[in-house]
Amino acid sequence: MSFRTIEWRDNKVVMIDQTRLPGEEVYNEYTDFQSVAEAIRGMIIRGAPAIGVAAAMGIALGAREIIADTHESFFRQLDNVCNVMARTRPTAVNLFWAIERMKRVAESHRDKDLNSIREILKAEAIRIEEEDLEICRAIGRNGAPLIKEGATILTHCNAGGLATAGYGTALGVIRAAHEAGKRIQVFADETRPWLQGARLTSWELMKDGIPVTLISDNMAGYFMRKGEIDVCVVGADRIAANGDTANKIGTYSVAVLAKENKIPFYVAAPVSTLDLSLKSGEDIPIEERHSREVTHLQGLPVAPEGVKVRNPAFDVTPARYIAGIITEKGVVRGDYEKELRALVGR
Amino acid sequence: MSFRTIEWRDNKVVMIDQTRLPGEEVYNEYTDFQSVAEAIRGMIIRGAPAIGVAAAMGIALGAREIIADTHESFFRQLDNVCNVMARTRPTAVNLFWAIERMKRVAESHRDKDLNSIREILKAEAIRIEEEDLEICRAIGRNGAPLIKEGATILTHCNAGGLATAGYGTALGVIRAAHEAGKRIQVFADETRPWLQGARLTSWELMKDGIPVTLISDNMAGYFMRKGEIDVCVVGADRIAANGDTANKIGTYSVAVLAKENKIPFYVAAPVSTLDLSLKSGEDIPIEERHSREVTHLQGLPVAPEGVKVRNPAFDVTPARYIAGIITEKGVVRGDYEKELRALVGR
Repeated sequence: MSFRTIEWRDNKVVMIDQTRLPGEEVYNEYTDFQSVAEAIRGMIIRGAPAIGVAAAMGIALGAREIIADTHESFFRQLDNVCNVMARTRPTAVNLFWAIERMKRVAESHRDKDLNSIREILKAEAIRIEEEDLEICRAIGRNGAPLIKEGATILTHCNAGGLATAGYGTALGVIRAAHEAGKRIQVFADETRPWLQGARLTSWELMKDGIPVTLISDNMAGYFMRKGEIDVCVVGADRIAANGDTANKIGTYSVAVLAKENKIPFYVAAPVSTLDLSLKSGEDIPIEERHSREVTHLQGLPVAPEGVKVRNPAFDVTPARYIAGIITEKGVVRGDYEKELRALVGR
Repeated sequence: MSFRTIEWRDNKVVMIDQTRLPGEEVYNEYTDFQSVAEAIRGMIIRGAPAIGVAAAMGIALGAREIIADTHESFFRQLDNVCNVMARTRPTAVNLFWAIERMKRVAESHRDKDLNSIREILKAEAIRIEEEDLEICRAIGRNGAPLIKEGATILTHCNAGGLATAGYGTALGVIRAAHEAGKRIQVFADETRPWLQGARLTSWELMKDGIPVTLISDNMAGYFMRKGEIDVCVVGADRIAANGDTANKIGTYSVAVLAKENKIPFYVAAPVSTLDLSLKSGEDIPIEERHSREVTHLQGLPVAPEGVKVRNPAFDVTPARYIAGIITEKGVVRGDYEKELRALVGR
């Protein structure tokens, strides 16, 4: 891939600014954890696995910023850094997963001196990033056999390299099928209101030479009914114990339309997106974002001033619509309750 | 209503410019049929019944423009005017219905002098406009009983006063329920790519004091599944003999989601939207519009340069998803094939 979503470089966190794509390919540098938190909140970086990596790197930055005479003071301040990260966005569980992992690592090295702990946290954040890339490649390998030669794949939002440390989850499956020499093409939902499909998915697939056709979200059903879509693959922000999957708003509609048109609908996500503490999707918190994302485009209004808006950023697709969940440990199907637990145990 | 979609005034056709709403309420004046055709093509005016009225008024303007020594020459040129109108947009059948009606009226007065025929055509165009308003009110009266006290109604695109001579079809049903004193509210799909819901439906409902909440198209399923939508009402561009209904792109998705969530889905349209010459929706021509509608917003790009785009402007909802078709002659249900033919005969 010819871009880097996020990396640790010279004790700075460097991210491609996803609010400015595809017009400009700008890399922002962050030297403090508060700015990283702000970047997550403001969607400079987005996508469940990518914000997990960003949170980990933000915590590593925060650990370097902490001025402390004692371990007690350091760990108290580190807790605060973690809390700031945890309050950025509520839905993607990878964020909380990464924060917990960083906390656990710090705790397990409490006997070391503070500078060693800072180095260990930095190394852990970089490891999370490196692992995420490997995980995406494994998801791709596991999912590619589900994509038939000549297939047209519909995807929603961006579950690509830009949503992960690289390669992507849903787009990882697509990339792996493409790399295996299958002639495939992608239909990308533009994904209102933030236009991740138009701005990000189209951009990264065009960069990789994978044929992509951009449509508005409300056209997906039209092309399914015309028989032009063979399979749907999307990412996930949080998967409950029963397989119910929270993902970008509109995913549920894609799943219902796929079922109605007898098209398989797959979710591709790392195991870190599983939240087995939640019985079903009903328990997943859904972020509602600012009305301006809906009422304004390019900074200009497209709706009457003062119109009431609802702007849920995610929805939940019940497990019964999902043909399979593609993870780095394999593809889960059927009895999600049982199979997801078995998977985590592997 | 506090605006006028289209009217004949001082031998000019005056239209509110729907490309500039809601930011500016500008009325354009047209004095020649070619500009009216251009206004239809460029969606200065849109909505199936409204473009029927516009075509009729355009023909009346054209008849005034014709310089002819003989009836033969006049009618040959009038045919040309009608052909220009017919080539503006392919899907809405009201356009062709209005053109045929104008042609028939001219033919039936062939024995009159040319200036009389010109006056008759002008009067007919004005009559089509006046009738359309009455028809919308009748659709409202027939549909209002289907809207329960306290209901939240989802609508797609704009089937309102702006899509007709006034009052609207789907929004006519909503207006009539509101006028009957029912406390109702509307969820308006923004309706990409042209944003008729954001720009037009929100605007006219706010003007009338009917509570409206704007959402992006891909949120409709989310609110249906949460039980926040009680009924869906949309307009139509062409209804085939079996009840299959072409309407703005995304309507099919709304219908499928409504069925999945056991929410009644109604179509509201005048009898002039019926095209009983077509056996099913498969035969309805679907306009594909320019990719720029998808790739650009407010004149600025939101997608990578050169990305491939599909942009069908309409889709077809099979009759089996439709709980009823609300017309000025009554509500049709069940065996559409039989009931629609009976309705036309009434």
